[in-house]
Amino acid sequence: MNEHPQPILPLDEDLNSALGFHVDEVEIGRVTGHFDVENKVRQPFGIVHGGAHAAFAETLASVGTFRAVAETGQIAMGMSNNTTFLRSVNGGRIRAEAIALSQGKTTWVWDVTLRDEQDRVCAVSRVTIAVRERRRA
Amino acid sequence: MNEHPQPILPLDEDLNSALGFHVDEVEIGRVTGHFDVENKVRQPFGIVHGGAHAAFAETLASVGTFRAVAETGQIAMGMSNNTTFLRSVNGGRIRAEAIALSQGKTTWVWDVTLRDEQDRVCAVSRVTIAVRERRRA
Amino acid sequence: MNEHPQPILPLDEDLNSALGFHVDEVEIGRVTGHFDVENKVRQPFGIVHGGAHAAFAETLASVGTFRAVAETGQIAMGMSNNTTFLRSVNGGRIRAEAIALSQGKTTWVWDVTLRDEQDRVCAVSRVTIAVRERRRA
Amino acid sequence: MNEHPQPILPLDEDLNSALGFHVDEVEIGRVTGHFDVENKVRQPFGIVHGGAHAAFAETLASVGTFRAVAETGQIAMGMSNNTTFLRSVNGGRIRAEAIALSQGKTTWVWDVTLRDEQDRVCAVSRVTIAVRERRRA
Repeated sequence: MNEHPQPILPLDEDLNSALGFHVDEVEIGRVTGHFDVENKVRQPFGIVHGGAHAAFAETLASVGTFRAVAETGQIAMGMSNNTTFLRSVNGGRIRAEAIALSQGKTTWVWDVTLRDEQDRVCAVSRVTIAVRERRRA
Repeated sequence: MNEHPQPILPLDEDLNSALGFHVDEVEIGRVTGHFDVENKVRQPFGIVHGGAHAAFAETLASVGTFRAVAETGQIAMGMSNNTTFLRSVNGGRIRAEAIALSQGKTTWVWDVTLRDEQDRVCAVSRVTIAVRERRRA
Repeated sequence: MNEHPQPILPLDEDLNSALGFHVDEVEIGRVTGHFDVENKVRQPFGIVHGGAHAAFAETLASVGTFRAVAETGQIAMGMSNNTTFLRSVNGGRIRAEAIALSQGKTTWVWDVTLRDEQDRVCAVSRVTIAVRERRRA
Repeated sequence: MNEHPQPILPLDEDLNSALGFHVDEVEIGRVTGHFDVENKVRQPFGIVHGGAHAAFAETLASVGTFRAVAETGQIAMGMSNNTTFLRSVNGGRIRAEAIALSQGKTTWVWDVTLRDEQDRVCAVSRVTIAVRERRRA
């Protein structure tokens, strides 16, 4: 019998918590989430750090893949993250939607679109997640 | 006379501080830095979050471009960040080196290599930074 | 008075001709086209060469940007092309649609989706095109 | 007993032939090649088509992976191709070198550097190639 891989970190200590990331909905092939623009996601000049967009896209794609494959005991590992920044954001809430373009046996490819408070696209990301067998202890 | 654009955030509050990123050396076309693998850069299963690699690459490339163009009053804006993950990292210190592949009038392209404590490449990132005139208040 | 930059190559000799690429519709922010899967777009094992997908995406995004900026005498120059291959294709016709995600003064970002004869997505590409002043002779 | 997968196309008919691509050296983890700048690799304004750079990088990475895994009966399939254009090229010979950054069981990641006749870097490409079992007929 397969057992679900379990998170090993206290949930309030990981990167998602450090940056204030929230996952809202998880369906097969679709994940949404949001984060608020506070200083912890800004670069020194006050706009959202590009890495925050990239990291949030990575989180949504990883969660979406993991939830789908975990029941067979598999894990999800990020392979690549290609994020393009279209509009700088100073404040408000950023909402994102991740859609799986392909759901393969060994890799899932996601398109993630991030929008600002006015619903304008501020960044897009293509994230590839590998599906791997969990290594036994 | 041009004046340097100045950071507007308290230095201990931005994303770099939230994730424990450190810039070590800044030369024209080359920047190095490091961060320690603590929970705030991990995903829930204990390995470094892909977004931490991407964000750190973004920081190094941005700082390297900004330092070079700031004296003419220009600013640096991230355009794209393509990060590939080669090896998962559980702990220790990650060191990175960013090298500028091109230093154009309107864009700089950087290759960033991130290495783990054992000096193995764990991620590589290609970051494009736009150079723009600062908008006057 | 600005004059349109003019192609300098015989139209039946360039890469688009060598690979059998066709542009079908060009609107502001949207371009479509197709190519047939013949040996000249295949790799040695008979499937479409990844470079054919990438090159076709580049063509559509370049044409779409060029047509929009040419009337002001500007030119379009490819900056980056990120293509992800989702399904291998052996034959038939490949149709593609390019949509501009942003239409900036200095760069346009395009999403290109390529579909096989059965309308399944076989590749996606994110292409960034720079808009530049034409250098005078 | 494993048998090498064999090319199925006449060698003088595939994309590599259509665009004049040549592979020069193939070692484990390193491949070099060249192509001459003739009209068939140009876009309509006379410079090398970005897709030619991308396609050539794809060829070198594919050949390098395939040669290494073919003896176990596996095949190489392109997963993604991220090419950044640094300098436009009008003529001469383009030489490229592909170096494997990782040589995994399921994916190989390559960095490809393309240089013009004056040995200046004109494009860089990061190519990910999947290693797959060959499907039996």
